[in-house]
Amino acid sequence: MKQNIVIVGLGLIGGSLAKAFRACGGFRVAGIDRDESVLRAALACGAVDRAGTEDDIRNADILYLCLYPRADVAFTREHLGAIRPGCLVTDTCGIKSWLCPRMAALAGERGFVFVGGHPMAGKEKSGFAASDGGLFRGASYILVPCGAPRWAVDRLKALAPKLGFSGTVETTPAEHDRIIAFTSQLPHALACAYVRSPQCPKHNGFSAGSYRDVSRVANINETMWTELFLENRAALAEELDTLIRHLGEIRGAVAAGDAETLRGLLRTGRKIKEELGE
Amino acid sequence: MKQNIVIVGLGLIGGSLAKAFRACGGFRVAGIDRDESVLRAALACGAVDRAGTEDDIRNADILYLCLYPRADVAFTREHLGAIRPGCLVTDTCGIKSWLCPRMAALAGERGFVFVGGHPMAGKEKSGFAASDGGLFRGASYILVPCGAPRWAVDRLKALAPKLGFSGTVETTPAEHDRIIAFTSQLPHALACAYVRSPQCPKHNGFSAGSYRDVSRVANINETMWTELFLENRAALAEELDTLIRHLGEIRGAVAAGDAETLRGLLRTGRKIKEELGE
Repeated sequence: MKQNIVIVGLGLIGGSLAKAFRACGGFRVAGIDRDESVLRAALACGAVDRAGTEDDIRNADILYLCLYPRADVAFTREHLGAIRPGCLVTDTCGIKSWLCPRMAALAGERGFVFVGGHPMAGKEKSGFAASDGGLFRGASYILVPCGAPRWAVDRLKALAPKLGFSGTVETTPAEHDRIIAFTSQLPHALACAYVRSPQCPKHNGFSAGSYRDVSRVANINETMWTELFLENRAALAEELDTLIRHLGEIRGAVAAGDAETLRGLLRTGRKIKEELGE
Repeated sequence: MKQNIVIVGLGLIGGSLAKAFRACGGFRVAGIDRDESVLRAALACGAVDRAGTEDDIRNADILYLCLYPRADVAFTREHLGAIRPGCLVTDTCGIKSWLCPRMAALAGERGFVFVGGHPMAGKEKSGFAASDGGLFRGASYILVPCGAPRWAVDRLKALAPKLGFSGTVETTPAEHDRIIAFTSQLPHALACAYVRSPQCPKHNGFSAGSYRDVSRVANINETMWTELFLENRAALAEELDTLIRHLGEIRGAVAAGDAETLRGLLRTGRKIKEELGE
């Protein structure tokens, strides 16, 4: 029997999830999006079987919330009566300490099961037009159980390789947000700060991989990332402080012409990468 | 008649140049390296026709200096008597304000012609073992004429597409160093500062392209980059100050929970990339 998948929000992640489910077969995929033109596009290219209704939510085996964090909670509240007790609800957003307690409370209230999820995949483009059934290939899938029963976590884990993920990790909301502040939020903040140099508009012909790699994610969806940054402000502020301090140390050694200190600071960076086997 | 190319220093860049020249034919390539095992490897794989001698320097049509900046100047001084007046001498190093006046002085003294050169290609690995005849494919080749006659600049420009470069730009030493401080030196400093976060060792399973891209060049040759940083200290210190200031602005908005300011700062980054068509 086919499983009923309902995907709420057909942006880059939701659209890619829909396509990945459709590509592996064995699922009925209903898509929900407030933008009619996105729904039409998703139907036209076969990313979803149909536009989702309240009935689809009622019959969902798994409900994927692929909106921004606040909108995920708002959607759940609004459709709480339609979510079947026992339904597996998960999300795909980039912060968890803010989201998980709110979702867990709603899960307790209604009797559904919530497991936080975060596919470590993205692009410097957003929206359904950028979605891609192969987006998750080779990526890690973070699961944040927040007290959900084991069967629910295992169900998402079992689906992960079918969707292309190379593996899953399980963690707590706090650890998720601390590490993500470093691995994902900080590079986005950095890219936006980096390209503001007065030299940036002149880079053509004078740049290669280093410029391209650091500046890439400055192509940011500033509305989404503002929400993500502010819902993880303590961890992100700490990462920014740490980076600013370490940049300041290099700056000091450069300005002072202190070769020994500078070499030591750069060597530290190399050693960390080497110890990680990267 | 085949042109005589002499390449001094068969590291990543010199070795790649040798292989690129050999691959396109029409050149006799002699390689010079103080490390005997590197010379043997270069001969064994056909990257060079032979180990270069003083006679090869005497007969060179073009002499490529592919050492660190100070070593480039030292080598030229040491072999000044062997460099034929009229010989075209160029380099491949990453700073020019320090190097070019020194090389131009030696060129004037001996009567050879010097054009600064900087292939905008690299790797997060160094040494001959990492060299690759295709390294320059699609890369820009920066030429810094420093008063050299037109024929010399045009000769290097004409060779560029044969070696795989997608184009050349001409500039002054000061402009080169100002822009390179931003496009190349800053990302290297940044990568080394970034990976020092206490979260870094935990990134596996919690990271994707953003982490990989920002951290990539932390795999640094700290000896070479210390020299490059210190020979461009004013421009690099200014870029570091600019970046630290812009990161501080984001940090302030995050810590204050100021969504409007934060959104504006991120939007600025996106607009800069959009205006560059990236």
